[in-house]
Amino acid sequence: MTIKLHGSAMSTCTGRVLITLFEKEVEDYELVEVDLSKGEHKSPEFLKHQPFGQIPYLVHGDLELFESRAIARGVADWYAKQGTPLYGSTAHERAQVEQWLEVEAQNYNPSISSIVFQIVFAPMFGKSTDEAVVAAETAKLESVLDIYEKRLSEKKYLAGDFFSLADLSHITYSYYLIKLAGKGAIYDSRPHVKAWIEGLFARPATQKWLKLAGYAQ
Amino acid sequence: MTIKLHGSAMSTCTGRVLITLFEKEVEDYELVEVDLSKGEHKSPEFLKHQPFGQIPYLVHGDLELFESRAIARGVADWYAKQGTPLYGSTAHERAQVEQWLEVEAQNYNPSISSIVFQIVFAPMFGKSTDEAVVAAETAKLESVLDIYEKRLSEKKYLAGDFFSLADLSHITYSYYLIKLAGKGAIYDSRPHVKAWIEGLFARPATQKWLKLAGYAQ
Ligand SMILES: N[C@@H](CCC(=O)N[C@@H](CS)C(=O)NCC(=O)O)C(=O)O
Ligand SMILES: N[C@@H](CCC(=O)N[C@@H](CS)C(=O)NCC(=O)O)C(=O)O
Repeated sequence: MTIKLHGSAMSTCTGRVLITLFEKEVEDYELVEVDLSKGEHKSPEFLKHQPFGQIPYLVHGDLELFESRAIARGVADWYAKQGTPLYGSTAHERAQVEQWLEVEAQNYNPSISSIVFQIVFAPMFGKSTDEAVVAAETAKLESVLDIYEKRLSEKKYLAGDFFSLADLSHITYSYYLIKLAGKGAIYDSRPHVKAWIEGLFARPATQKWLKLAGYAQ
Repeated sequence: MTIKLHGSAMSTCTGRVLITLFEKEVEDYELVEVDLSKGEHKSPEFLKHQPFGQIPYLVHGDLELFESRAIARGVADWYAKQGTPLYGSTAHERAQVEQWLEVEAQNYNPSISSIVFQIVFAPMFGKSTDEAVVAAETAKLESVLDIYEKRLSEKKYLAGDFFSLADLSHITYSYYLIKLAGKGAIYDSRPHVKAWIEGLFARPATQKWLKLAGYAQ
C-alpha cells in the first residue's frame, strides 16, 4: 500500500519524514507536492487533512496522520523490522530516544526555527530580520548546545551509542541554520557537536533528502 | 522496584507524570519533592540528573529519564497491561494518540504556558503581567481551540472515541489556566471543548493529583 506524503521536499518538517522513510528503506511512497507559495496549505481541501494548515501530512491506507514527529514515530514503528533501527533495541533505549526527541522538540526546535525564520524566511516575505530576536534565540540555542556538547563527549549519539530518531529529528533545521542562515560558527566552537552534526549530514538518507530537495547534486 | 519521581506535585509537568502513574494504577512510586523556591532544581546535584535544570525527572532501577512527555510515554509502555490503556488498542490508534500528543506539545502548550506564566507566575516573581503577550497568545489559543471544538464534535476524545495520553497531557495546564489564571471563559464558549475538559477534570486520577497538589480536598 503506497504511502502518500503531502508536503514539500524543501521544507524542514517534510524533510524530517523523508529522511525517516529513507533510513527505514521504505520504497513504496509517493511525495505529493504542496505549493506553499500558492497557499495550497490553506485551501479548504488541505485543511480537511491538516486543520492547522501546515505541511506535512501522510496517508497510509485508511490512516491519515499529521505532525512530522508523530509521522516519524509511526514510520519507525510500522517498519520496525527493516532499515536502520530508530528506537534502539531495548525498552530502556526507547525511553532515552523519546527523552532526546522531546529535548529536540522542546528546547532545540523553538530557538532554531525562530532564528531560521528571521534570517531565511522573513526576507522572502519582504520583512526585515529582527536582530534582537536572533540574538536572544541564539543565546538560548548556545546554552542548549553546551548541554549537547557534554552529552556527546560521553556518548556517540544523543540517546546513547546508537543513532536514533532523536538525532535524525535535528538534521533538517540544523542544515538550514548552517547552510542557509550561515550560522555554522555556533557548531564549530563545540567539537563533539560539530562531529555529530557532520556525521548526521553525511548519512546516505540525509544525502538522499538533500538531493531530492535540490540542496545537493 | 520503586519509581522515584523528583519534582513538585503542584507543578504542571510533574502533574502530567503523576496523573499518568495514577491512570496506570502504579502504586510503587515515591515523590521526591524538589523545592523550586529554594532553587534546588539549579543545584549541581540536580543538574547531573536533569541538565536543563527543570523538573521533573524519574529514576526507575538503572534508568533515569526526564522530559514529562517522554516519562509519560515510558510509564504508559512499561505498564501497558494494567490500569487505563493510554495508547488505544491498535497501531492506528497509537499513531493518532502520538499525533494529538504532538498537537498538545506544539500548538496548545506554547500559548497556554505563556499565558499562565504571565498571569500566575510573573506576579509571584515581582514582575507585572505583560498584557500584550496575554492577548496575542490568547488569540492563538482560541484558534487552536476552534480546531479542537470541531474535532470533539466528531469524536469523544482527541485521538478518537477513547481516552488517551493525548487528552491526559492537556489536564494540568488547562487546570491552571481555568482555576488559577481565571480564563475559563475561553472554554465556556466552546461546548464540546468545555464538556471534554470537565470530563478530564472529573477523572479519579485527576482528582487524586489535585488533592496531592493541595488544589482540592
Ligand atoms: N508541528 C508541525 C509543524 C509543521 C510546520 O511548521 N510546517 C511548516 C513547514 S516546515 C509550514 O507548513 N509552514 C507554513 C505555515 O505554517 O503556514 C509538524 O512538525 O509537522
Ligand atoms: N519540557 C520539560 C519542561 C519542564 C518544565 O518546564 N518544568 C518547570 C515546572 S512545570 C520548571 O522546572 N520550571 C523551573 C525553571 O524552568 O527554572 C518537561 O516537559 O519536562
